[in-house]
Parts: sequence; structure tokens; C-alpha cells
Amino acid sequence: MFHIAIFGCGVVGSGVADILLDKQEYISRRFNTELRLTKIVDIRKMDGTPYAEYITSDKNDVLGDDKIKLVTVTVGGLDMAADICRDALRAGKHVVTSNKAVVAEYGRELTLLAYENNVRFMYEASAGGGIPIIRPLNICMSANDIYEIQGILNGTTNYMLTGMYKNKVSFDAVLKEAQHLGYAEADPSADVDGYDAARKIAILSSIAYHAFVDYRRVKCVGIRDVTYADHELAASGGYLIKLIAGSRISDDGLRISVEPKLVHKTHMLSSVSSVYNAVLVRGSYIGDAMFYGQGAGKLATASAILGDIIEVLEAPERQSLPDFISNTACIADRSHDRERFYVRLTVPFNDNESDELLRNIKDVFGGSVVYLGYALSDDSTVAFISEKRTENEIEDLLALLRARTYIEASYTMRVAE
Amino acid sequence: MFHIAIFGCGVVGSGVADILLDKQEYISRRFNTELRLTKIVDIRKMDGTPYAEYITSDKNDVLGDDKIKLVTVTVGGLDMAADICRDALRAGKHVVTSNKAVVAEYGRELTLLAYENNVRFMYEASAGGGIPIIRPLNICMSANDIYEIQGILNGTTNYMLTGMYKNKVSFDAVLKEAQHLGYAEADPSADVDGYDAARKIAILSSIAYHAFVDYRRVKCVGIRDVTYADHELAASGGYLIKLIAGSRISDDGLRISVEPKLVHKTHMLSSVSSVYNAVLVRGSYIGDAMFYGQGAGKLATASAILGDIIEVLEAPERQSLPDFISNTACIADRSHDRERFYVRLTVPFNDNESDELLRNIKDVFGGSVVYLGYALSDDSTVAFISEKRTENEIEDLLALLRARTYIEASYTMRVAE
Repeated sequence: MFHIAIFGCGVVGSGVADILLDKQEYISRRFNTELRLTKIVDIRKMDGTPYAEYITSDKNDVLGDDKIKLVTVTVGGLDMAADICRDALRAGKHVVTSNKAVVAEYGRELTLLAYENNVRFMYEASAGGGIPIIRPLNICMSANDIYEIQGILNGTTNYMLTGMYKNKVSFDAVLKEAQHLGYAEADPSADVDGYDAARKIAILSSIAYHAFVDYRRVKCVGIRDVTYADHELAASGGYLIKLIAGSRISDDGLRISVEPKLVHKTHMLSSVSSVYNAVLVRGSYIGDAMFYGQGAGKLATASAILGDIIEVLEAPERQSLPDFISNTACIADRSHDRERFYVRLTVPFNDNESDELLRNIKDVFGGSVVYLGYALSDDSTVAFISEKRTENEIEDLLALLRARTYIEASYTMRVAE
Repeated sequence: MFHIAIFGCGVVGSGVADILLDKQEYISRRFNTELRLTKIVDIRKMDGTPYAEYITSDKNDVLGDDKIKLVTVTVGGLDMAADICRDALRAGKHVVTSNKAVVAEYGRELTLLAYENNVRFMYEASAGGGIPIIRPLNICMSANDIYEIQGILNGTTNYMLTGMYKNKVSFDAVLKEAQHLGYAEADPSADVDGYDAARKIAILSSIAYHAFVDYRRVKCVGIRDVTYADHELAASGGYLIKLIAGSRISDDGLRISVEPKLVHKTHMLSSVSSVYNAVLVRGSYIGDAMFYGQGAGKLATASAILGDIIEVLEAPERQSLPDFISNTACIADRSHDRERFYVRLTVPFNDNESDELLRNIKDVFGGSVVYLGYALSDDSTVAFISEKRTENEIEDLLALLRARTYIEASYTMRVAE
């Protein structure tokens, strides 16, 4: 008998309970192991719900119960959740979690602790929600040298960027709407400033490149400065704006960032809209592969947790230690990287001068820039896409342009390749 | 020591050899098992290649060698390949194959034979080429009730359909080009008539719905009758034409087919172009999930085979028997299914009568049909999209329309939802 306990009966935890209660007979039969939800640890009593009969507020009811072989840690926050993981692993129980903060911060320590205790620490649900991505990286594609990941890993910001363009509204307006619908928090910083996606790309990169990536080293640029005019100008060149969590191996280390980028409509990630997530992986043998699905949500996330539970049923023995336990990724300075940049300028509008502005842009940035013109919605906003340049070159060229003509403000985004 | 032998050193087999020779040290270290390519069975001597030192033409050199724990069966054809699988499984060796004909025809028998011999029979590469899809179905999503799969599972036809539209050419012209480039066979029937995709959707459906699907029961409509005008008319309504291998659970059984369909540009499969494949899976908890990548090609397919090899390293023990061994899917008649249809009519062109034709279409098919108008490239071709109708209703309504106005020919395709 394989008893399971759930720590935390919130949105995801109750989803795990729902699926287990619905499917434990089927899974038991299918995988030849009697699976049984035994306890749910929560300070709430949950009276009148199907969870009530499993509830205990004492974590030692689980930690001290040798029949319980696996716990899911579906509580939020950081240190208390990490402590539960530690205690459970030390008690010889497999741990499955959706808590990305815990995985990004303590993933190395907890993986090692699981190894030492001959159990498994699993976290498919911590990046990409319901999308199976960690298992494919770990096993299916693991003969590949993976050299790039590009992900849309935050549903809130993808919903907001999709909505801004579709409904022709400002960042502030779409944020209010997302907050109203419960897609964004009252303090939206973790989403809109990219910190949530940074943790996820750090987790995926650590696995893919066999070297630990500290999420604090991920350069984050949020979406607060993206305007409706940017969407309009990008669209005129065939692009959409997406918050891309990306990492790429280069000669001098790993380039890793979360930032809004222009994504051409022929790029697979361009069709990922609203709350959906997707991860594009580039490998030496497989070429481009993409994984798409719901990045959050009660049952989709719980589905990923069930996938981990089933994987433990299939292969409960101690696995070999992943390389990110002993290797640490060298993070490269991307200021020398040549990329195409979208450049938006705020200029005093004067129709007679627009030809001159274009001439100045072409003189300074080179004749092969792609001029996107003025925004229909805001006649003081003009934009173009540069040739491949370094960040510093773009800054220098902007300074040169300013010396020739008055520019009130400028904003740049990279173009995803 | 975990010795591996390869049966068949063709395109895929040599790809497996390339990856093994390149990566066996790394994989051995990473998965704590000494992995070693030991023999390659092929009638060719392969002198002057890196494979020569492993070559034997005698299969008993492998079957009789107890050190060899796993063989890859990367030979084409059906019966000889199946015999190799049988012999290897009976000799207690794990078998990994990319041969979809073998899996579609003998998958049940070979899975059972593997079970009886306490080894594994694996075939990730048999459907979707390099894309990890069988493992996600088997493990990651296996708590879900999967109710629909829509796939672009044949790279040749996807290349051809993409090329027809892009280059404004006929089916015959794009077929010649595909044959010239080696993407299509001299006898293209397996690809263009849908038989290759039928085997793949039968394999995926057997796993997803826990019941064996006989590929002979998959209704196949090929792409030979799709014209450039169809692409043009579809595009005017925001659709692309894709060969969709699909299956869906319904009250009276499984509906399963391979057929060209109109796919709206907002549908995730619409962005899958050229030789790429993708599989969209709809499940009770996960919602929509999609897997995208190279559906064929030496190294991409070999990458999937390596994924299977690594999975065997991780979990070599006998697995539980999948449900498709004992259950057989009931295939439903889809003639009662209500779907939207694209209807293309060949009519004598007469500008004065086109208003009358539209009126007749609306009278007969109902006012909410979406009229796509005349093809720019062919003024005797006109098309519209119906409301949700059964196949028979569409036939009946077409007969009614013919009673009112002269129609030279008609052609219908379903619209993917």
C-alpha cells in the first residue's frame, strides 16, 4: 500500500485531492500499486467538504506515519514550505511540489537530501504548470546538448500583453482588469516585473544545461513600460510582444533573461496567447521542440503533480544525482551579444519633419533598419527595428541620433530569433 | 555493463550509432550505468565508416550474446523487423524501435511478449519522430481522461500543403518538388493518402484511450484533391489547410480519421508548417496541451530512441501491462457527427449569376453559412463554410442545391475545432 499525504489544501492541493479521490482506484490498477490518499495537513478544518475526513492540523501525523510514502507540498511561501520538504525527505518520504520559490531557492539542497535518503524530490509542476516539460528534459531529450530555451512562463503577463493588444488599452488598464478577474495579485510585482518567470527559467535551465542557475542572476525586465503603441508598431512589422524567459549557451557562458521581446508571427511562441504557457527547446539532435499548455490553474497544475506521483510509482529507487548539484552555470554578460533591437522614440510630431527623422535614423543606424513608422494611436511615437547590434552600440547610436534631432524619450526591446 | 546493439544501419540506425558513440560516456556517468554500443547488424560492411568495427551480418551474434541487454530495431518493412523484435524479446533483451508499421500491426503482441520476458518494448520514435509524446501520454498526463487528439503527424504532406499555398502551385507540382528533394517517395501513397498518419494516430490513440485501435479502422482521406484554390479560399476566411490525424471519444465510441481539414489561424496547429509535426492533446485536467517538433529526420528520430534507451536505464523492471492489451476500442460511425464543413463548388462562371448562387446557397444551407466567394485564381471555383451538419445532411443539401442551379463538381472538407 502506497499512502499519500497532501500538505496544504489550497487551490493546487485541493486539486490534487480531487484527482486522487477520483482516480486512485484506476491508478492503482494501472500501475500495480495500491495508491491511497490518507491525510491532508491544513490548519483549516474544511468541514462540509470531501477533504474533511482526511484533515489533520498536526504535521507529525504525517511525518511520523511510516505508511505514508509520498507527500505533496502544495503550500505557498518559502521557508515553511522548505522545512516541510526537508522534514518529509528526512523521514524517508518522496516529495512532490509545485512551489517554484522552494525549488528555485533550495532545489539543490532538497535534491541532495532526497538522494541521501533514497527517495525522490520531484517538481514538474513548478515550471510551466500542467505542461510536461521537466520529464522530457530529464529523460526524453537527455541525449541532446540543449543550447537554448525560450519560454512564455508567466500566464498573468501573457494574458495582459494579449489583452493590451486585442482591446487597445494601456498597461494600467489591463492590469486593473487582470486584478479584477483574479489573474493578477494586488501587488503584481512578481508577475509583471518578471520575478516569477525568472525562477522558472532558472529551474528549467539548471536541468537542461546540467549546471545550477541562481535565479537571482537572471536579468529581469518587466512589462510595465510596454505601451499599446508598441503593440501596434510591432504588429505593423508582423510581430507580437511577449514576455520571454530565455537562456542560451554561448562561448563565454549562459545568457539568461526575462524581458519583453518582439516575436515574429512565424515564430512558434507567437501563437501562445492569453493564460497559456509554452517552452521552446533547442537541442543538438532534436532541433526545435515546443511544449504548450496551461501554465497555471488548479487541475492543470494538479495533473502535473499526479504525473510526478506516477513517475515515483514507476521508478521509486534512488536516481543518479543530476549534474546541477555539483556544477554551477557561469552567467555571461550579454552586453556583447549582437541582437536585433526594436527602438521606440518619443518625438515632437511634425509631419514635415518625419522624412527628416527617417533619414536621420537611416544615417545613424544603417540603411537596413526596418522602419515601422508612427503609431496610429499616438502620433508622437515612432519605431524601427535595428540590424544586429550590441546593447552598448544601440545606446551609442541613440546618443548620436539625439545629437542630430530632438528625442524626448526612447525605449528598446530585443527581437526573439 | 549495459551493452546495446543496433539492427539496421540505415538513416535512423546510423543516427542512433552516431549519438551513442558521441554520448555513451556522458550517459553512463549521468545514469550510473556503463552503456556501450557493441554491435550493429547490417548486411552492408560499411567499410570506411565509424560503424565498420561494430558491423556483423549475423543476427545471432547479437541474439546469442547475453551481455547485450537492449537492441534498437531500426530496419524498415514489416515482417522481418517484427521477427527481429520477437527474437530479441524472447532472448530477454529490451527492444526500442522507430518502426511504426511494426508497432501499429504487432504492438499488442510485442508489448505482451516483452512483459512475459520481463523486459520492455519501447517506441517513442514511431509516432511524431523526435517529439516526446508517448512518454508524456504514458506518465505525465496519465491521471487525465484524455478525450481528443489532433495531430499533424506526416511531415511530407505538411511540407506539401505549406508549399502549395506559399508558392501558389498545384498538388502535382508540389509533389514533384517534394519527390525531387527526397521528402516524398516515388510512390507517395503512404504519405499523401494518409496511411502513414493513420498508423501513428492509431498508436497514440491506443495509449491515450487505454484501448487498442486497429489502424485499418482509421478512415483515411488523402490530400490529392486539395487545390490551390482551396488554400486561397480557406485563407480568405482565416484558415489554413492541414492533414489532420484526429481521434475523439464520443458517446458511441471513438471517432478517428486522417483527412485534410480547415484549421483557423488562431488554432495552435495552424502555425505548424513545413516538415514539422505536432500533437494537440485534450485531457480532463490538463486541458489543451501541445507537443511540437521534427516528425522525421535522422538525428531527431534517433534522439527519441535515445530517450527510450535512457528510460530503460532508469526503470528496467517489468512495467504493468497497458490497458490496450486487453481492451479494444469501439470505433464509432461519424456520419451522425455534426461538424462545420468547407464546401467547394465548381460552377460555370457568370458574373450576373453569382448573386443568385449566393442566394441559393443561403436558402439551402441556411443564412449563417460563411461565404468565402470565388477563388481569385480560378473563377469557376466558389466556396463556403456550413453550420454544424452531419455528413449526410451536407450531401442532401448539396443535392437540393443542384436541383436549383448547375454545379459541375463539389468537394468538402471538415473544419477543425
